[in-house]
Amino acid sequence: MNFASDNWAGAHPTIAQHLFEASVGFSAPYGASEQDRRIEQRFSELFEREVAVYFVSTGTAANSLALASVNRPGGVSFCHREAHMLEDECGAPEFFTHGARLAPVDGKNGKIDPSNLKAEIQRFPPNFIHAGQPMAISITQSTEIGTVYQPDEIAEIAEIAKYYRLPLHMDGARIANALVALDLSPADMTWKLGVDIVSFGATKNGCWCAEALVFMDPVMSNDLPFIRKRAAQLFSKSRFIASQFDAYLQNGLWLELALHANTMAKYLENGIKNSKNAHLAWQVEANEVFAVMTKTCSEQLKRKGAIFYEWNPPRAKQDLLSHDEVLVRLVTSFATETDQIDLFLKNLG
Amino acid sequence: MNFASDNWAGAHPTIAQHLFEASVGFSAPYGASEQDRRIEQRFSELFEREVAVYFVSTGTAANSLALASVNRPGGVSFCHREAHMLEDECGAPEFFTHGARLAPVDGKNGKIDPSNLKAEIQRFPPNFIHAGQPMAISITQSTEIGTVYQPDEIAEIAEIAKYYRLPLHMDGARIANALVALDLSPADMTWKLGVDIVSFGATKNGCWCAEALVFMDPVMSNDLPFIRKRAAQLFSKSRFIASQFDAYLQNGLWLELALHANTMAKYLENGIKNSKNAHLAWQVEANEVFAVMTKTCSEQLKRKGAIFYEWNPPRAKQDLLSHDEVLVRLVTSFATETDQIDLFLKNLG
Amino acid sequence: MNFASDNWAGAHPTIAQHLFEASVGFSAPYGASEQDRRIEQRFSELFEREVAVYFVSTGTAANSLALASVNRPGGVSFCHREAHMLEDECGAPEFFTHGARLAPVDGKNGKIDPSNLKAEIQRFPPNFIHAGQPMAISITQSTEIGTVYQPDEIAEIAEIAKYYRLPLHMDGARIANALVALDLSPADMTWKLGVDIVSFGATKNGCWCAEALVFMDPVMSNDLPFIRKRAAQLFSKSRFIASQFDAYLQNGLWLELALHANTMAKYLENGIKNSKNAHLAWQVEANEVFAVMTKTCSEQLKRKGAIFYEWNPPRAKQDLLSHDEVLVRLVTSFATETDQIDLFLKNLG
Amino acid sequence: MNFASDNWAGAHPTIAQHLFEASVGFSAPYGASEQDRRIEQRFSELFEREVAVYFVSTGTAANSLALASVNRPGGVSFCHREAHMLEDECGAPEFFTHGARLAPVDGKNGKIDPSNLKAEIQRFPPNFIHAGQPMAISITQSTEIGTVYQPDEIAEIAEIAKYYRLPLHMDGARIANALVALDLSPADMTWKLGVDIVSFGATKNGCWCAEALVFMDPVMSNDLPFIRKRAAQLFSKSRFIASQFDAYLQNGLWLELALHANTMAKYLENGIKNSKNAHLAWQVEANEVFAVMTKTCSEQLKRKGAIFYEWNPPRAKQDLLSHDEVLVRLVTSFATETDQIDLFLKNLG
Repeated sequence: MNFASDNWAGAHPTIAQHLFEASVGFSAPYGASEQDRRIEQRFSELFEREVAVYFVSTGTAANSLALASVNRPGGVSFCHREAHMLEDECGAPEFFTHGARLAPVDGKNGKIDPSNLKAEIQRFPPNFIHAGQPMAISITQSTEIGTVYQPDEIAEIAEIAKYYRLPLHMDGARIANALVALDLSPADMTWKLGVDIVSFGATKNGCWCAEALVFMDPVMSNDLPFIRKRAAQLFSKSRFIASQFDAYLQNGLWLELALHANTMAKYLENGIKNSKNAHLAWQVEANEVFAVMTKTCSEQLKRKGAIFYEWNPPRAKQDLLSHDEVLVRLVTSFATETDQIDLFLKNLG
Repeated sequence: MNFASDNWAGAHPTIAQHLFEASVGFSAPYGASEQDRRIEQRFSELFEREVAVYFVSTGTAANSLALASVNRPGGVSFCHREAHMLEDECGAPEFFTHGARLAPVDGKNGKIDPSNLKAEIQRFPPNFIHAGQPMAISITQSTEIGTVYQPDEIAEIAEIAKYYRLPLHMDGARIANALVALDLSPADMTWKLGVDIVSFGATKNGCWCAEALVFMDPVMSNDLPFIRKRAAQLFSKSRFIASQFDAYLQNGLWLELALHANTMAKYLENGIKNSKNAHLAWQVEANEVFAVMTKTCSEQLKRKGAIFYEWNPPRAKQDLLSHDEVLVRLVTSFATETDQIDLFLKNLG
Repeated sequence: MNFASDNWAGAHPTIAQHLFEASVGFSAPYGASEQDRRIEQRFSELFEREVAVYFVSTGTAANSLALASVNRPGGVSFCHREAHMLEDECGAPEFFTHGARLAPVDGKNGKIDPSNLKAEIQRFPPNFIHAGQPMAISITQSTEIGTVYQPDEIAEIAEIAKYYRLPLHMDGARIANALVALDLSPADMTWKLGVDIVSFGATKNGCWCAEALVFMDPVMSNDLPFIRKRAAQLFSKSRFIASQFDAYLQNGLWLELALHANTMAKYLENGIKNSKNAHLAWQVEANEVFAVMTKTCSEQLKRKGAIFYEWNPPRAKQDLLSHDEVLVRLVTSFATETDQIDLFLKNLG
Repeated sequence: MNFASDNWAGAHPTIAQHLFEASVGFSAPYGASEQDRRIEQRFSELFEREVAVYFVSTGTAANSLALASVNRPGGVSFCHREAHMLEDECGAPEFFTHGARLAPVDGKNGKIDPSNLKAEIQRFPPNFIHAGQPMAISITQSTEIGTVYQPDEIAEIAEIAKYYRLPLHMDGARIANALVALDLSPADMTWKLGVDIVSFGATKNGCWCAEALVFMDPVMSNDLPFIRKRAAQLFSKSRFIASQFDAYLQNGLWLELALHANTMAKYLENGIKNSKNAHLAWQVEANEVFAVMTKTCSEQLKRKGAIFYEWNPPRAKQDLLSHDEVLVRLVTSFATETDQIDLFLKNLG
């Protein structure tokens, strides 16, 4: 009964097998091999345009280098108040940008509210050096609370980005889950709506370690080779990342795995709807289920062997919990099995 | 005939197999799993004392975070003029220390000369803020030019470090090759001589990606968990590094692989000694062979399919080459085979 | 009718004269002269304990280096949402701390609310590396909106700081105005209540350029000489700052000047209370008057020659203004004269 | 007998007087006043083209922000091995560029040797990310050892800069002394030879604190307003710098003061030439005299009241001194008087 996070699972057998098979032979290091080139090509096909792709070691690295690539002195990036880069990256985005700030923007359902976004950006009149200067907007898809931006919601934020000439970044640590949820192609969910840079995560969805930073306009990443190397993020045996992506993107495996995770989340959601001891905090849209239950109930589940985290309620939803209640986060992954969910639901009652 | 670098090889089958087998099941992320704990324990056994171990993604990361962990404002670290951190890390050590400087120290055979070291340190009188302040000494074992510090040479540098109260770091990207060359235990080549921090590399010696930063005194690394996370170097599925180290350190595999690489280098050295078209630039002590040959000869070898790099001669050896000669670097690894060397030598003539 | 800011005034004649007289003769640079030493001694007398004093060039430098002196990787400092360091320093505090974050804390009247402060700090459980780690608390006295923390309010925040072992910084860009408003000694308003570091500003109160960073515990500033020099903040002819402080602190001139500024603010406040065209936004406690008036009225005053800024209302007071109203900030200084206020009030009507 | 440094002198009476007179009245802060504008105009006249001018607090700030304005990830700037920015700024240039490196270039007489410069730059092949990338060249005029680059020497370095598309910076902490020595106009010694950015120092030559960063092409400094503010280098009462420059540049005062300093140095040089107890280390070209004498002689002079520093000999001149000799630096300034030199020479014997 492991619902702690999608990074508790290991690697999917197909990916692990492919990596094993790729272990022999010589190949140019530092991303210069044919395999690397082939994967880059694969990404361009995936996104239906020529993109620039850079492997990095973690999602935090991808997000941080995305901002570093568009850095400005006194720069301010706008993200949701509960965004991963603001809450869970130990200041890495600020570190890699030498102190460029992340400005929190409020919004319901884990999504940036466009009018709040506009109001925050307007606090930075052009050339008013004392305040600093806007530098980027970042959205998370799917979001930190398991919701999904609808295409028109992304388009609305992209329009603001365009108006203020700010690059729009998408933290796609769980991008596959969002694509499956919306049944959209990568192109349709990103640059066709106005997204410029994507942190394309695969680790949570069945790889060991496979994170790619994708620039829709390769020119935008001209400095990135130096930025990445200086950030100690250039793998020598880069092809071990390439191999994972190779297997991951082949024959739609990645979408299949994400669909499984999402389906498991729906299955779990359904069970919780029927539970008398818990209720959903909000609707499930990808592979994360947030439920409200009593502290006692949560502890009982843990004693029975369930593994999951209690979560800080969103600041905008402080009235979500009664005094004896907790918010719990349940994450499903490619490795989640129905019998484990059944067991969890049985224990929940 | 691939002698380009030890990072052109893939992963050793035993390690690749072990990683494959470890891919199933759930396990705590971010270095908190039992496997991680077990490897930490394994490192303590290896070093014959309780050490603190941190996995990172690259050798550059290991070196940079080693310096970051002992950082000082206006800090200056002393390393050999041709050290990897000075020549091949794109300023990462300076970046992760917010600008602490690397001061080059000259010395023969790729090794820091102790009296030059002392002279450089003495340019920083205590509390003379204008110059900055000494912060660390770093040696590379085996060195960038394939030589190896003898134990007494390390001890002499360690004594200087101790006198000036500076931590002594060892860049061990090829530490196994040095251990095998000297037939010393890890403890005997490090802390027993006065080394405080080791970048323990395994990638070049048969892993996909396995670099560990080892602190002989765990207290010295108190800030490192935050430093590493902020550096975007904390793997979520950390156990995939642990698995590699697990196989690597089992039954002496790592030393066996390094011994093979060193033996192949000796074999190649011997062949070059007997060649009429090339001569050794200096003695081979680990897994790198440096030879002098004409540019024509080098190009002919490449046309025949040999892969290797021409190298900048050490600044202190500017008279090494005649005007039509080049210095070539030939690196052997766990994957090097004698027939390839034979073929190379035959082509060399 | 200049109420734009206290930094629009030049230097007080006594200070300017003293600086002029000090211009002759030789004297050790970089803060090593006897004059520098004497001023340090003067600060120790002023604070009734041995303090460490460092001159820097701007208030932004003082605040930024205060944080730099207590820096931590992944560090987070807590300040009011409208604090100067968050709104008006172009990211300097983040820059000088290599990306340590400023976390905004809400609170009425420009002052940090202690329970909000606690709630924010508690979002950082000890050793939870993902979130980062608390590093400092900073209050502004007098505040950005011209209010003043009462002694018990400072003590309450200091208690929280102590509990979480966080240093407490006071941004005293207008510290003299606060001291005069509360009729407290420097010791009574700072370390006796638990303040550890003070940005002691004198520029706004009659100097050309005189900002000092004062550490109540000199040990806390052990690294500061290097930090300041590396920050390019060590003046060679440091005595020109010393000279200004010399005159400033002599015979209570500094308190006299602040008292004048505060008295002028009260005088202006009184006039606005009697105006039919404006009303006070909140009570005046130091040398800043915030008033609400129509946009038309504000523009009329400017046309008549009044110089002042329209101000963003505090985020917590979004209902302060009707749609046609603006918030205006009127700052008085040592150089403000009653006839100018009278003229302003006459024009206001 | 004060020959310690030109920053031991206070301010020239004319400048001090002018500053005193400018202390009254209101004026826009942060460099927005008419006085600031007027000085900017004055600089454009001085340089015979439209330049952009930024006041900063120290020479270290000017040099560091010059490099920050042309910063690149993994950037490397080339300067003389004994340059101030490398030896005496506590790592500030690296700090303000987030770790961009200073590469030392050898050369006789304190000046960069063009062929050494080329050799160093060529160690950075285009797009070879491991080494980093060239970013700027910096020369010091007059140099740290009191010599002066001849126009053709500057032109030769500028040609290299142009070839590699690198901006050329001049550290002009003592620029006036060089101009007077060469009898050239500012334009003739800078942009007409290919210099792009100048740290224009006035502090050492009679001001309290007046350092300007001058960009020959204003477009090059587009980011500087944010860079400077974030660096805590934007003075609020900026006009106090403007006032100093106003007096300094009026009626050729600045050149007169530099001429006096240089003449005093020549006078001192002449005396030393006739001394039996000391000899010149190299020819005097600006306002610094370097002499070799016995340690005993140096100590005797100090006992007699002479104030000066013993200096590290240039690394390239290690054979300058016999074992009982020291190198002493004697700096003259606008405030040096002949009777003090006479007394010094009499004591020297």
